Amino acid sequence: MEIYADNAATTKMSRTATEAMMQCLENQYGNPSSLYSLGQRAKEKLELSREEIAAVIGASPKEITFTSGGSEADNQALRSAAALGKKAGKKHIISTAFEHHAILHTLKALEKEGFEVTLLPVHENGVVRVNELEELLRDDTCLVSVMFANNEIGTIQPIREIGALCRSHGVLFHTDAVQAVGHLPIDVAADNIDLLSASGHKFHGPKGVGFLYARRGVRLTSLIEGGAQERGKRAGTENVAGVAAMATALREAAENMEANAAHLLPLRDRLIAGLREIPHAELNGDAEKRLPGNVNFCFEGIEGESLLLLLDDRGICASSGSACTSGSLDPSHVLLAIGRVHDVAHGSLRLTLGEDATAEEVEYIIQNVKEVVEHLRSFSPVWRDLESGKAPHIL
Amino acid sequence: MEIYADNAATTKMSRTATEAMMQCLENQYGNPSSLYSLGQRAKEKLELSREEIAAVIGASPKEITFTSGGSEADNQALRSAAALGKKAGKKHIISTAFEHHAILHTLKALEKEGFEVTLLPVHENGVVRVNELEELLRDDTCLVSVMFANNEIGTIQPIREIGALCRSHGVLFHTDAVQAVGHLPIDVAADNIDLLSASGHKFHGPKGVGFLYARRGVRLTSLIEGGAQERGKRAGTENVAGVAAMATALREAAENMEANAAHLLPLRDRLIAGLREIPHAELNGDAEKRLPGNVNFCFEGIEGESLLLLLDDRGICASSGSACTSGSLDPSHVLLAIGRVHDVAHGSLRLTLGEDATAEEVEYIIQNVKEVVEHLRSFSPVWRDLESGKAPHIL
Repeated sequence: MEIYADNAATTKMSRTATEAMMQCLENQYGNPSSLYSLGQRAKEKLELSREEIAAVIGASPKEITFTSGGSEADNQALRSAAALGKKAGKKHIISTAFEHHAILHTLKALEKEGFEVTLLPVHENGVVRVNELEELLRDDTCLVSVMFANNEIGTIQPIREIGALCRSHGVLFHTDAVQAVGHLPIDVAADNIDLLSASGHKFHGPKGVGFLYARRGVRLTSLIEGGAQERGKRAGTENVAGVAAMATALREAAENMEANAAHLLPLRDRLIAGLREIPHAELNGDAEKRLPGNVNFCFEGIEGESLLLLLDDRGICASSGSACTSGSLDPSHVLLAIGRVHDVAHGSLRLTLGEDATAEEVEYIIQNVKEVVEHLRSFSPVWRDLESGKAPHIL
Repeated sequence: MEIYADNAATTKMSRTATEAMMQCLENQYGNPSSLYSLGQRAKEKLELSREEIAAVIGASPKEITFTSGGSEADNQALRSAAALGKKAGKKHIISTAFEHHAILHTLKALEKEGFEVTLLPVHENGVVRVNELEELLRDDTCLVSVMFANNEIGTIQPIREIGALCRSHGVLFHTDAVQAVGHLPIDVAADNIDLLSASGHKFHGPKGVGFLYARRGVRLTSLIEGGAQERGKRAGTENVAGVAAMATALREAAENMEANAAHLLPLRDRLIAGLREIPHAELNGDAEKRLPGNVNFCFEGIEGESLLLLLDDRGICASSGSACTSGSLDPSHVLLAIGRVHDVAHGSLRLTLGEDATAEEVEYIIQNVKEVVEHLRSFSPVWRDLESGKAPHIL
């Protein structure tokens, strides 16, 4: 059996998105800035895609700027809000300890440029508490950035409440919605969102394309200078085929969102229940407030990388956390943020189901994770110490 | 007849590049940062593409960083060299008056940050003179950026000589080679190039992907912070399918480069000769030192936009200059840089032939441009004044 259970890392492009891309490469290959009809056809495709994407999140087309992906959108959102803050003499930013590195590293850079950054705790359940955010808000706070749903543990944040709080305090609110767009209902107006980042390849669109929503009146700063594309906010010939494929994938995801969630929730919960049967294993993050396809566990006495390689041998594609940090030997900052100790955080497993997942596949995953965990523990000195009582069990 | 003669604006993806993209979307859709085999297959594809691209320009794979296109590569190149310069206490940059806006606008931003920028003249023939560059070099010059071939008038710069001069003075040399890569022989070592920008969609690869060559030892600054992709120099999940298609297109372009040039040169020269038969028309830029497919003319008494629309009616896709500035009413900064006056610069026509252009198409273009120019002049008040002697002819 071959099971791709790492849909939080990336998804396979949908058939319709692939077709939209091919169609565009064949018929709308002109430069959208060109005057002749071939160029104008490309421009129309681009603008139609913008409308489709805007509609899904309740935005207006002019509020959507296309980028090369989620990281660029995150960088541009933070840099834009920081520039506005600086202009207003406000240089305090609030975010959370378990944001994606596209946020955390940009915040580090902004700190070097004189901004002060406060990171909210996310607690054991991986969910921000709005009252704690309220306490941190200051007169010089220019931006709050809280991700919509976490990329590792899938926990969903109280975005609407955070947005309302920020709006009432006149503070810009950005959300990295890379894991949420196409998977959760989003309404930027009702949710009081000023800036929102998204990435095509997380909802069966292509890699290398994403978008940034910026509420009308929130002025974007260019990260990439040059031509006047994207109303002067993002230079470079537009990736028309990529954008068209992203719009198609998003429309499809939005149309099927309820059905997908209804299909995935019982599978996710069965997977959680099955893996909970493994001794000294614990779910990471809230069991309810999480993405429909996300399961993330810590296993005592296990080294995550070995677990992944053995699961790969059995046809299961899974990860220990974010793909973006897989080269790193450090334990996940997300798991540390929810209070896991280093040793345990090293033994994590993230399984993110795709919309086509089946009950049979879930049972196959449960059975194989059980076997592989048992196998790895059988020759783990850490596990031996835990079982002999030399070291105390934590989970 | 339908003739796409705006290949400097963008090209249609080649069949093999499209197939490479499709193949990758189907079989290597994993995240290259993922440990399991599907991810590692994507990683292998990415690195194989890097090797192919490096080989074409005589670089080593580690010297290639993938970007979202030429503009991003230009921005990153200039920002990186500026950061290195600043560190060394050198804040003078030399470039030319007819660079792409991705360069000129980034230079403007750097000026605001305290850098001093000198723009070299490009003379009537649109070619930089190396001795003039030498005179401008100072002890505090940290960077020289000269485009390999101009995007509007196609003139090819003495890159190897500029590179040698910069190298001998210990000054970094960047070239925006967006119009040259895949069309002209480039050897970054022999050409003494430290930084080089390229864009996939200019040589029949996809839009939304490009690369930046940085010589070993030239430290890049990240424009986009986040994950550790591209050795920490460019965050964001890699656009594997786009990169694979770009590599395929570039390999193809390199293999056919001599044959393409041999095919295009006589067609270009016939097109130039044909259009020269139009009275009061002049070729822009050197007739010899120009890209094999580039023809750029000014016509007196003509408004460029009307010319393009009428040619479009006759099935000919052409432009007045750069697609990136087509929304602007200002005359081309490139044409102004080679000394064209405003009125004349407004009446420009760029025809950039693709490798599949035929002699028949060239004759069709000549005939139709002749007819359309005559038609437009027949009711142009400017032309009437010129013909009646009220105003003097310039061309």
